[in-house]
Amino acid sequence: MQLIKNVLGREVPTEVNGRSVHPFQGIGKFQPQGRKVGAPIPSGANYKSSKVLDSIDAALNKMNLFNGMTISFHHHLRNGDILVNLVVQKLADRGIKDIVLAPSALFPVHEPLVQHIKNGTVSHVLGSMNGPVGRLCSTGGMKKTAILRSHGGRYRAIQDGDLHIDAAFIAAPTADPHGNANGVLGKSACGPLGFALADSLYADQVVIVTDNLVPFPTFPWSIEGGNVDYVVTIDSLGDPQKIVSGTTKITTDPTRLKIASMAAQLVRDSGFIYEQEFSFQAGAGGMSLAFIQYVADYMREKNVVADFVRGGSTKTLTDMLDEGLTKFILDGQSFDLAGVASLRDNPHHIETNPFVSYNYHTKGCFAPRVKASVLGGTEIDLDFNVNVNTHSDGWLLHGIGGFQDAADAEMTIITAPLYRKTNPIVVEKVVTVTAPGESIDAIVTDQGIAINPNRTDLLDRLKDSDLPLVTIEELHEKAIAITGKPAAFQTKDNVVAVIEWRDGTIIDSVKELDV
Amino acid sequence: MQLIKNVLGREVPTEVNGRSVHPFQGIGKFQPQGRKVGAPIPSGANYKSSKVLDSIDAALNKMNLFNGMTISFHHHLRNGDILVNLVVQKLADRGIKDIVLAPSALFPVHEPLVQHIKNGTVSHVLGSMNGPVGRLCSTGGMKKTAILRSHGGRYRAIQDGDLHIDAAFIAAPTADPHGNANGVLGKSACGPLGFALADSLYADQVVIVTDNLVPFPTFPWSIEGGNVDYVVTIDSLGDPQKIVSGTTKITTDPTRLKIASMAAQLVRDSGFIYEQEFSFQAGAGGMSLAFIQYVADYMREKNVVADFVRGGSTKTLTDMLDEGLTKFILDGQSFDLAGVASLRDNPHHIETNPFVSYNYHTKGCFAPRVKASVLGGTEIDLDFNVNVNTHSDGWLLHGIGGFQDAADAEMTIITAPLYRKTNPIVVEKVVTVTAPGESIDAIVTDQGIAINPNRTDLLDRLKDSDLPLVTIEELHEKAIAITGKPAAFQTKDNVVAVIEWRDGTIIDSVKELDV
Repeated sequence: MQLIKNVLGREVPTEVNGRSVHPFQGIGKFQPQGRKVGAPIPSGANYKSSKVLDSIDAALNKMNLFNGMTISFHHHLRNGDILVNLVVQKLADRGIKDIVLAPSALFPVHEPLVQHIKNGTVSHVLGSMNGPVGRLCSTGGMKKTAILRSHGGRYRAIQDGDLHIDAAFIAAPTADPHGNANGVLGKSACGPLGFALADSLYADQVVIVTDNLVPFPTFPWSIEGGNVDYVVTIDSLGDPQKIVSGTTKITTDPTRLKIASMAAQLVRDSGFIYEQEFSFQAGAGGMSLAFIQYVADYMREKNVVADFVRGGSTKTLTDMLDEGLTKFILDGQSFDLAGVASLRDNPHHIETNPFVSYNYHTKGCFAPRVKASVLGGTEIDLDFNVNVNTHSDGWLLHGIGGFQDAADAEMTIITAPLYRKTNPIVVEKVVTVTAPGESIDAIVTDQGIAINPNRTDLLDRLKDSDLPLVTIEELHEKAIAITGKPAAFQTKDNVVAVIEWRDGTIIDSVKELDV
Repeated sequence: MQLIKNVLGREVPTEVNGRSVHPFQGIGKFQPQGRKVGAPIPSGANYKSSKVLDSIDAALNKMNLFNGMTISFHHHLRNGDILVNLVVQKLADRGIKDIVLAPSALFPVHEPLVQHIKNGTVSHVLGSMNGPVGRLCSTGGMKKTAILRSHGGRYRAIQDGDLHIDAAFIAAPTADPHGNANGVLGKSACGPLGFALADSLYADQVVIVTDNLVPFPTFPWSIEGGNVDYVVTIDSLGDPQKIVSGTTKITTDPTRLKIASMAAQLVRDSGFIYEQEFSFQAGAGGMSLAFIQYVADYMREKNVVADFVRGGSTKTLTDMLDEGLTKFILDGQSFDLAGVASLRDNPHHIETNPFVSYNYHTKGCFAPRVKASVLGGTEIDLDFNVNVNTHSDGWLLHGIGGFQDAADAEMTIITAPLYRKTNPIVVEKVVTVTAPGESIDAIVTDQGIAINPNRTDLLDRLKDSDLPLVTIEELHEKAIAITGKPAAFQTKDNVVAVIEWRDGTIIDSVKELDV
């Protein structure tokens, strides 16, 4: 594997698993060529009999299965999902080898994959890996190179033909016999099903798996039956408690509350709240929820109504919609039951998918229309590069999620404590670059706020603010004064995973840990 | 042009405008090969500045325009549309020649196209032609062969790569600066925008033209901004009175009421109303509306609730939804203001597009899920072939609309008087085959009902009915006893238009009239 240095000075391969790839060149610099791919042309003549089957085996019996095939799953059921383990086990039972697994993300519940990778059923993963599978990847446990993509990047890769899916298995909380499916109804309701959209449009074979088959037509049809080969019924898609939490909880930790408050004030003092077309995006973590409440307070003060807010949706966000503080929620995934119910019942709570929200290879997606995006990170360095994938000790333990995409906002704010345990958050150089510094505009810590110096416009907006603005170097010094310099770790030469930027270029590599 | 006989004995070309085509082989017999096509891969980097332009000229200045280019339009604004004439005139002013016009349909308002075709600005039409343009085509006035496709067939042709669109101009009653667009809001509201969906997904260049620009996000986004290059604002998209009628009117003509009543009784006596999953499709003509009311009466008698009914939507249909006689309206186009309002406000009134409803090259569309479909026709012959395109004197004056697609229903019923003026409706051989007899199950006339003898199951269902069941031959004899045999007409040898079956094969040709 030949490695070259990309524009950030990161060593990246020019070929991944036999496919030529481009190094990251800076945001917006890489110009794609060619046309989007298309799924095989089907004929309605071959879909005259019922698509409904009463077991996954019945579907597998009808499908084209082969060694080396790429199969895909979505992660809307999160840690409550049973489908990934079930399908891979059944393929293992049939002796299928070298499966390429292309989920939108994996969770700790998918730990059984470790054995499937070790015994050769699964070759490697093209998708985000949380926890045990990432740990295996870090130590060179996969046959080929893993590729991590953002939510938007995954849609792009499928659409552009970089990621060909032979068979998509789509867990659907509700489906009808036609194959129309959604995530807002049924006992396993999870909210949107957008992460499975690209799979349904582009995969050669598409299987809906549902524990709530209803008469045609179910609506919304987040997945359209015209793209679906089989509809499999099973008793349960998983554990509803782990699919969505009952409620998401606002942090009570004073440090995190302080950070949330400062981030909200940053959004206020920058003036965006009081201008036309205000919007923001914040996640479902306790600190993000606190941020949302502080921003909501500022909005109430001056009767501001946001044009839209972006989920993941939570009760904190749906309360804003119900109160009239925002015209719309544009929701990619629901994190609690209030989010699911609002998506189901409120016509101004709109399901989105990575094509409309995040895909960079479109004629524009929503991400750059967001005024303020508040994101977490594992590390941020003096160039404002952010790492959300690896820990400071080199372990690959997290996916990209929507990070790269959400960082396309007008003002992208990282919120983090200055240090966690003995690890500084602001470091000299991040272990892995998930997003380049040019996409990051501010870091808010409990010990001060650093604004990217390239954002002179932002610094100008903030010149009358009483926020504790400091330089990133000051934050770094404060951090290591407390934690000391992070310990070095050893890697071997070989690349076990690459981090794709959302345009398909390679922004960084993850090397095998020498442990 | 080489002509061969297809399975119906109709002479059809093997090549149309340089592209090889297959003869019609019978329903479901042609198996497509290959993969769907894709639009050019765009980069978000090229869509950072505003898409909004204040004139069509401003868009044309930025676009790639060339002689021989294919441009497209949808017909949701029907006879109220101004966009087709406006754009073609502007292209003519710029000296563009040999434009291939690919509208989903044309209406009498588009008569100015006749001059553009005559003077070489427009070469030919790939799409349905109503009225004057069809008349020009009939007499050989186009440079190349016109191709008529059904609504579903048009989507298929675009998706399969048979119809490549260089630039789509999409009239949008409401749009936002991102390019999201719908037809349910604004002064030019027309209902669904589904006929433009394929154009937005597959055309190289996509222009939204709106007279109601609203802040991002407008919802629903029938057209997604991620597929849109430019958003042009103009004062008016056309005449709202002609875009949708204020109200659609039920027939009062005794003959037509009788036919509608008999068709409804046919649906009742066949038993479909009283079985699981009842559904029907009927249009917006006065006789169809009467049919709907008669069926609704039968449903009320036994507390039947349809799983869905298909529009075009009208007040007659939305009243059924409001009364609880159907769970859903699946609506492809709204024909009156009540239809538009219901689509906008009632979450059980669902917008559909030709992909989900009509496209045969899918893994199933909705059309075959409809239990009873009631359609009109110009002629039906002893083999139950139906003609909706040409008159008995050979003039090509009508598009296919959704006829071929809707004929995929479990029971497809043609309603027509036995004769119109001096023309028999039931003829020995139709002038042009729009849909083959194997797709047609019954013809209901004021003088009796003929069931397709191949539908022995249907005849069995009707054995206790008191409906006046006769043979198609009897209907034919009755008709010509009154009208006499239709006069013959002369054609030249050359084919001016072909009729595509919904799978892309050629079901019939239209030859130049010798007048």
